[in-house]
Amino acid sequence: MTSVYLDNNATTRVDIRVAEAMLPTLTEVFGNPSSLHAFGAVAKAAVAAAREDVRALIGAAHADEIVFTSGGTESDALAILGALGSATSGRTEIVISVVEHPAVRRLCQSLQKTRGLVLHEIPVDGHGRLDRAAYAAALSARTALVSIMWANNETGTVFPVADLAAAAKTAGALFHTDAVQAVGRLPVGVAERMIDLLSLSGHKLHAPKGVGALYVRRGVRLAAQTSGGSQERGRRAGTENVPGIVALGAACALAAERIASDTPRIAALRDTLETGLLARVAGARVLGDSESRVANTTSIAFAAVESEAVVRLLDRHGIAVSSGSACAAGSVEPSHVVRAMGVPEDFARGVVRFSLSRETTAAEIDRVLAVVPAVIGELRADRFEPAA
Amino acid sequence: MTSVYLDNNATTRVDIRVAEAMLPTLTEVFGNPSSLHAFGAVAKAAVAAAREDVRALIGAAHADEIVFTSGGTESDALAILGALGSATSGRTEIVISVVEHPAVRRLCQSLQKTRGLVLHEIPVDGHGRLDRAAYAAALSARTALVSIMWANNETGTVFPVADLAAAAKTAGALFHTDAVQAVGRLPVGVAERMIDLLSLSGHKLHAPKGVGALYVRRGVRLAAQTSGGSQERGRRAGTENVPGIVALGAACALAAERIASDTPRIAALRDTLETGLLARVAGARVLGDSESRVANTTSIAFAAVESEAVVRLLDRHGIAVSSGSACAAGSVEPSHVVRAMGVPEDFARGVVRFSLSRETTAAEIDRVLAVVPAVIGELRADRFEPAA
Repeated sequence: MTSVYLDNNATTRVDIRVAEAMLPTLTEVFGNPSSLHAFGAVAKAAVAAAREDVRALIGAAHADEIVFTSGGTESDALAILGALGSATSGRTEIVISVVEHPAVRRLCQSLQKTRGLVLHEIPVDGHGRLDRAAYAAALSARTALVSIMWANNETGTVFPVADLAAAAKTAGALFHTDAVQAVGRLPVGVAERMIDLLSLSGHKLHAPKGVGALYVRRGVRLAAQTSGGSQERGRRAGTENVPGIVALGAACALAAERIASDTPRIAALRDTLETGLLARVAGARVLGDSESRVANTTSIAFAAVESEAVVRLLDRHGIAVSSGSACAAGSVEPSHVVRAMGVPEDFARGVVRFSLSRETTAAEIDRVLAVVPAVIGELRADRFEPAA
Repeated sequence: MTSVYLDNNATTRVDIRVAEAMLPTLTEVFGNPSSLHAFGAVAKAAVAAAREDVRALIGAAHADEIVFTSGGTESDALAILGALGSATSGRTEIVISVVEHPAVRRLCQSLQKTRGLVLHEIPVDGHGRLDRAAYAAALSARTALVSIMWANNETGTVFPVADLAAAAKTAGALFHTDAVQAVGRLPVGVAERMIDLLSLSGHKLHAPKGVGALYVRRGVRLAAQTSGGSQERGRRAGTENVPGIVALGAACALAAERIASDTPRIAALRDTLETGLLARVAGARVLGDSESRVANTTSIAFAAVESEAVVRLLDRHGIAVSSGSACAAGSVEPSHVVRAMGVPEDFARGVVRFSLSRETTAAEIDRVLAVVPAVIGELRADRFEPAA
């Protein structure tokens, strides 16, 4: 059975060209970039080249604004803790959206508890759109940091980060965005959008797991969160993950090259899938903001089914999708994102996320369109059968 | 020119079998272990198998005692901050050696400043051996944590961790050891040695950079240092670095299989190198404890030369060695380890570390023995020539 992988918001397959770029760093360019000899020098040069590729993809002005990390979670923590660690006194409030990834939301919630910071969680409407009035009202001379994701992992909803960043700047606050679902999927252009801090993750854009980056605009003071060696200009201690970094650079170069042609093709496939499912399955609705979404994502709530059952039954048909986010998987409760949008109870338990990539084919979408309606029908029939 | 790589304490070449084990995790077994579908399940199983290989190499009782991290620095930080975060009140002191890696020493020094913890840095003698009387005197009912490295990265000196751990236990303190230079080079056997916490790093044992692990003995309470997903049983948030973890597992399995036969061979080559250099170069002395050293390391202080000049000139001959640790490279000052041993000034500036691996050959050692004396002679001649 051929598998169809539509869970690219959980993780992506490493592009074969990325794997090929990475391979020499394992057994040939294996030096420690801090070493003074030639083995060290070539590794150092490989890291510098990758840094430039990341810079170019996100539209940063300078390569030294990129700090390599172990992934999105570490990037988020470095941004938030680093910014708070050098915030001016009197700025003790954080503003986030209620639909942030746990890497941001749980961290900020714990800071509220342990450090007495004031946390504002801005609500979203039924389409997952940020409550702009509440956002404006939350900003003040007490705001140290705003952290609003670029695109939501569960629904694909894209937030107006340029506007949000401008408002944060007016209030004198730093603006961080968790852009792990956006980088490589839409143009981010950090320099022109007045973003101060941006998190990205390799494994969401066809690089391997275990590597990510944090963009730190020049002039932003960031307190280091690690002690040890003085790698990454003192901002992140520990021997550089040269294979991961080189792979991330290759993935960024590839994304930069392909994003313009990939995006409309992926959006067309996603739209075919979405309209096809809505036409074939009664009691189905799309979650999120159809006016402002990443091209690869559709999150569909099916009434009268449990999403986990859908995921497991589709898996038996070789189709990989997700019930909300991988990070919340295992929980039978609707995710905090679904809750925040006020999805009616009967739909809230049947949310299935389909997330495509540039590898997704029209034939795969056809297959999904053939299988999903039958699976939903089967589960609904089971549900109404009397127990034996 | 064929290169000779004798800087394996800075980093090692990824074993080709390790790279081969890792490759499928990039493009085939690429799922997110948290996902409910088959792509997730195979990735999860691969992580579990690797955890078992790490457990076996270090002699842990249970696989769930292994927490995967991004490397040695993160493992050290998780151990120290995690242990302190759940220390009982009244226990506010830390005991380390003065020759700890910066990942431990700088962190503890910063905790002393920012959290008001009392830090005891136990001195070493001229051979790099811990002052046992000072260690015993430092332990008390106020000690929360001891962190003493298993083997020193610069000299290879092995500390008597089983005895040190037993003493810490008697004082009611937790015992952590930074074993990044020991794991894979000598048998560690954590369970029988009463070690509570042990850090290891992939890239020191022929796995890639960007992955490491922390052993946490069952029953040890560790406060998580990351917020986000509940990976690693809530002890380390962030999508698992499946490629790195699988590679680390493969490297551990390989080390377990080879350590008994590799170690005497490596020690014999190291001894040939060491005695050869001492015989051929006047004004040379070995640093560290010749009675208790890892097999692969010799650190030699050459009088009347600058170590950085030796490293750079040997590099032109295709021989990669280090001046102390890679983490301190770039500094012209003798390292804190060399200072702590009280090496006389004329020798202290000429310390060169040769660190071998199982890939090192007798022919390479012959080459080094032919080149180094000439290089030292050349540099000394330069030094005493009158300026033009």
